[in-house]
Amino acid sequence: MILILVTGGTFDKEYHELSGTLAFKETHVPEMLRRGRCRADVSVRTLMMIDSLEMSGADRAAIVAECRRAEETRILITHGTDTMVETAVALGRVFDHTQDKTIVLTGAMVPYAFGSSDGLFNLGSALSFVQVLPAGVYVAMNGRYFTWDRVQKNRETGIFEPA
Amino acid sequence: MILILVTGGTFDKEYHELSGTLAFKETHVPEMLRRGRCRADVSVRTLMMIDSLEMSGADRAAIVAECRRAEETRILITHGTDTMVETAVALGRVFDHTQDKTIVLTGAMVPYAFGSSDGLFNLGSALSFVQVLPAGVYVAMNGRYFTWDRVQKNRETGIFEPA
Amino acid sequence: MILILVTGGTFDKEYHELSGTLAFKETHVPEMLRRGRCRADVSVRTLMMIDSLEMSGADRAAIVAECRRAEETRILITHGTDTMVETAVALGRVFDHTQDKTIVLTGAMVPYAFGSSDGLFNLGSALSFVQVLPAGVYVAMNGRYFTWDRVQKNRETGIFEPA
Amino acid sequence: MILILVTGGTFDKEYHELSGTLAFKETHVPEMLRRGRCRADVSVRTLMMIDSLEMSGADRAAIVAECRRAEETRILITHGTDTMVETAVALGRVFDHTQDKTIVLTGAMVPYAFGSSDGLFNLGSALSFVQVLPAGVYVAMNGRYFTWDRVQKNRETGIFEPA
Repeated sequence: MILILVTGGTFDKEYHELSGTLAFKETHVPEMLRRGRCRADVSVRTLMMIDSLEMSGADRAAIVAECRRAEETRILITHGTDTMVETAVALGRVFDHTQDKTIVLTGAMVPYAFGSSDGLFNLGSALSFVQVLPAGVYVAMNGRYFTWDRVQKNRETGIFEPA
Repeated sequence: MILILVTGGTFDKEYHELSGTLAFKETHVPEMLRRGRCRADVSVRTLMMIDSLEMSGADRAAIVAECRRAEETRILITHGTDTMVETAVALGRVFDHTQDKTIVLTGAMVPYAFGSSDGLFNLGSALSFVQVLPAGVYVAMNGRYFTWDRVQKNRETGIFEPA
Repeated sequence: MILILVTGGTFDKEYHELSGTLAFKETHVPEMLRRGRCRADVSVRTLMMIDSLEMSGADRAAIVAECRRAEETRILITHGTDTMVETAVALGRVFDHTQDKTIVLTGAMVPYAFGSSDGLFNLGSALSFVQVLPAGVYVAMNGRYFTWDRVQKNRETGIFEPA
Repeated sequence: MILILVTGGTFDKEYHELSGTLAFKETHVPEMLRRGRCRADVSVRTLMMIDSLEMSGADRAAIVAECRRAEETRILITHGTDTMVETAVALGRVFDHTQDKTIVLTGAMVPYAFGSSDGLFNLGSALSFVQVLPAGVYVAMNGRYFTWDRVQKNRETGIFEPA
């Protein structure tokens, strides 16, 4: 059983047509899993729906607490890319290989609701990594995975790379 | 370095607007990798572009030969779903865990060119499994992976399941 | 009040993922009108769901009869492109400018369910032409309109042009 | 010959993936015309690329001047919906039925780059209205057309309606 924890991020942003702004409504994760005809045993839980630039220390603590509380040993977290590495670090300090939990963070550069989104690719990727990687905390972006302590987002290119 | 071997299948079917039929032109795999902002080290090679219902024993032998010849130890094969298991079996009999090659087959239920395609999800999934699974031959569909000798496609539901 | 008569055609073809073929389910016209935020006063009626290559003389007679019976004086017909001109001729012989009915036929080269479909453009176009053209029978394709007796589909290019 | 004057608006907004904001790059109009397999005789000119909330009196004067200067008698203007009516009024005061110019403004509630955009429908609609309406200034939205002096955008619903 895999837990998918939704925290918001670009992944789930939608165009609000009356205000002309990008905002959150519901998560697209269940629809994306249906589109991928996913039959992995997953449970989706929305913890928060925020832009990761607005994520506070308390929010990160809530994510860590939720992972601790979870009965599932495999956890996928959808997250904004801007501070994904910070949350990975917060988790990595708690969940090491002795903890028996595999946690993978992923997100998207372009909202799923846009035709050109990378979200479906990233979800398929993260869901696969979380099933086979050993206990630990990882970031899955750009078709690759990184351990929490060796990854950074390149702000110029938007690409995650080894740190 | 990962080799992506393209063999065709629903994945790559396009609508041919003059004849009103589904047909193959070029593979969509490079475009899909761009959309996924993929930075995994991949090389794409089109071996054939056929419907897997029309795949002959000679075609399967060609796929096995190509995998044997490949210098890459991690190989992802895009393939029609109808006979994906047969090709997995042909490969599985040759490439066991002593061979040092991880081969993952994937495909799609709906062509990538359709809005509702599962292709991008499956490509992200297979590309991730191929990076971390041990040597052997696998099918990656529906967000899961199966070893070549324990998988079947359910013709009623279109879902891959343990055999 | 505008009547939209649905007869099938490429417009409404969908990918049937178990058989791997293109087939008809429900018409997409209501969903397309929602997407276009259409507030024109329209009523959608599905008369048949067939490929226009399979349209018989009896089918054409049924379309003519339906247009005759209709209380609406403005009628948009969605139709396969292959024999759209034949149906336009069948209608044109009956509904001339003395009849007080404006009938516009349209269709699509690529199914609406495909990302690259021209269907939404054509529906917006035909719906506008039907509101303002004088009584008569027309084909609306490629952003233009043609009277029923001066149009042909170029089989080489798929483009409708003056005949 | 139809002139398409591009002024920006939601129509042409794109997601800028490094900043996570909506911004303008190039106009999508030529791509949309290709997708609609448009063969109407059109010429596309980008006059400005701005959000209509930021459109100044000078910008409106520039649009009026461009329409005056144009040799084409049929002009379609793509425009943000928020102040489309204001620009229609500025044009309507100059181009009445004695002027021999048919001018149609249109836009979109959702950017074309989003899967769910109404843009393609609206472009097909406006392009058709501009070909057949008599000289004057009109707004084409929601599958309908309105004369410049009898239209308003309902801010609650986002729908254009008679004023």
